[in-house]
Amino acid sequence: MDVIALNEIQAAFSPESALQSIKEGFIAYSKQKVDVPPVGYLGFKEPPGDCHIKYGYINDSPYFVIKVATGFFKNHLVNLPTSNGLMLVMSSQTGQPLALLQDEGWLTDTRTAIAGALAAIQLAPQNIKQIGLIGCGIQARHQLRWLSYATPCKKVSVWSPSLHNSENFAEEMAEFGFQVIPSKNPEQTVSESQLIVTTTPSKQPIIKADWVQPGTHITAVGADAEGKQELEDSLVAAADILAVDSKDQCCDHGEIAHAFQAGLIDIDKIVELGVILDNSDLLKRSSTAVSICDLTGVAVQDIVIATTVYESIKGNL
Amino acid sequence: MDVIALNEIQAAFSPESALQSIKEGFIAYSKQKVDVPPVGYLGFKEPPGDCHIKYGYINDSPYFVIKVATGFFKNHLVNLPTSNGLMLVMSSQTGQPLALLQDEGWLTDTRTAIAGALAAIQLAPQNIKQIGLIGCGIQARHQLRWLSYATPCKKVSVWSPSLHNSENFAEEMAEFGFQVIPSKNPEQTVSESQLIVTTTPSKQPIIKADWVQPGTHITAVGADAEGKQELEDSLVAAADILAVDSKDQCCDHGEIAHAFQAGLIDIDKIVELGVILDNSDLLKRSSTAVSICDLTGVAVQDIVIATTVYESIKGNL
Repeated sequence: MDVIALNEIQAAFSPESALQSIKEGFIAYSKQKVDVPPVGYLGFKEPPGDCHIKYGYINDSPYFVIKVATGFFKNHLVNLPTSNGLMLVMSSQTGQPLALLQDEGWLTDTRTAIAGALAAIQLAPQNIKQIGLIGCGIQARHQLRWLSYATPCKKVSVWSPSLHNSENFAEEMAEFGFQVIPSKNPEQTVSESQLIVTTTPSKQPIIKADWVQPGTHITAVGADAEGKQELEDSLVAAADILAVDSKDQCCDHGEIAHAFQAGLIDIDKIVELGVILDNSDLLKRSSTAVSICDLTGVAVQDIVIATTVYESIKGNL
Repeated sequence: MDVIALNEIQAAFSPESALQSIKEGFIAYSKQKVDVPPVGYLGFKEPPGDCHIKYGYINDSPYFVIKVATGFFKNHLVNLPTSNGLMLVMSSQTGQPLALLQDEGWLTDTRTAIAGALAAIQLAPQNIKQIGLIGCGIQARHQLRWLSYATPCKKVSVWSPSLHNSENFAEEMAEFGFQVIPSKNPEQTVSESQLIVTTTPSKQPIIKADWVQPGTHITAVGADAEGKQELEDSLVAAADILAVDSKDQCCDHGEIAHAFQAGLIDIDKIVELGVILDNSDLLKRSSTAVSICDLTGVAVQDIVIATTVYESIKGNL
């Protein structure tokens, strides 16, 4: 069994391979060519934290993958990051453990951002004059960098509840060539951007329907559990295109769950990202359309990113 | 994160500590002082195999544990053992991965045998003239050696479907001081033994009620999944003492599930091993009683054995 540290994973990491394999993973998922059982969950009260175990395999793959991801929300008090994690690559031929990827959550952050890039490649409008970010944490950093695969636009407006954090974000992202303007109100960020990514853990809607201009795409990443919400119900209900990573998950506990459960959207209107990725001609957006992609995170992303990294490192061992 | 190989685990392993901690684990389990979610499961068709993920923690413990166990039933064709596995010890304070125990299934085999020893210590009759074993695989080897903590008896009768395998078993166990007689029929093994351990994957009853003499204890280890059965229903129904590692599991898919689901036993008659271990005076067996302990394997055993091994190794790091 190979034990592979984060720096080795990052050194071997090919963004193009990861993008391609996660695209294929979404397609396999939507074709139901995967075996992905319900997510395992452990909760902790004091200090508050949780652990998710996502696992499964793509049919006919020589591997299966088990991902462990933890979030402990008081870790900053002991100078540790909130999130941690690892992935196990196992043989689906013999059950043998093949590799431990000690990615410390980096592969999860990365595969989440790759889904955002894939959504933007498929759904965002042609002319993006400004990218809008709601939230400026770790995931916003990953999302913005991966958006380079979807658009050459480097002009960014960012809003977060903390202007100080937004300013730090702007400074940091400048190193990657982005001109980021911290915004004092989310309405301005939203109304002036054509490609918006939301990455907050908000439990009440931030973006109002009125703010969103025709010809806008929004990727909603923050709402990945019951009770979280970043977009107003009426915005979700009125969207011309409604994409999701997983119909089951998104209708249960994603961004669109609120509007769906309130009976404001028809399930037939919702299209899985894997279906769109498999047939780019399926959806043609008009220049005035508003599109939303709700990403809750599916185990198939973990499975393919771990497998891709393992194969790339194995080739070099 | 420490990565600990099987030989290091075995070198640091203290049988007495493990016995004591698993005893405490069963007690905590029966007092519902544990958080142990349903077992995760993945099945594979070609080659046939499965993977079980058991995880959880004992309340107030600084650790939680995730165990991965695989069984691939054609592995002998590629000269690999059927079973494999590993355990992850994680911090319940920060979510950080602390150790990977590469035990290859050894800790699972061991914790299963320790449960057998604990059952025999509590439930077996005073005078054991002969130990009877039904099945002679890896788990039978572990069970027999651990029975030394329950009885000084070294005389053993073993029956398995293959006399050749029984003979190999007898030869191997002689090295540990056991006088093992391979038996040509299970009736003889059962009727002449006072402490019986069954470890076969049988799907139909092997031991008939008529064979079992008064004053016998049987620990049934083999039936750990739906459809498996080693003891006749009427034997289970007529037992004077009926112990289980987990009421929920045993009534659902353990040895006693068949008799229970047929309405032959009252749930109030079934006592959890953790309850008995917590109060040794609870059950007093008469000299003619027949007792049965059904072991399906509970995650708390994995949790405590991994934790105990990790703490012992950490002390030496």
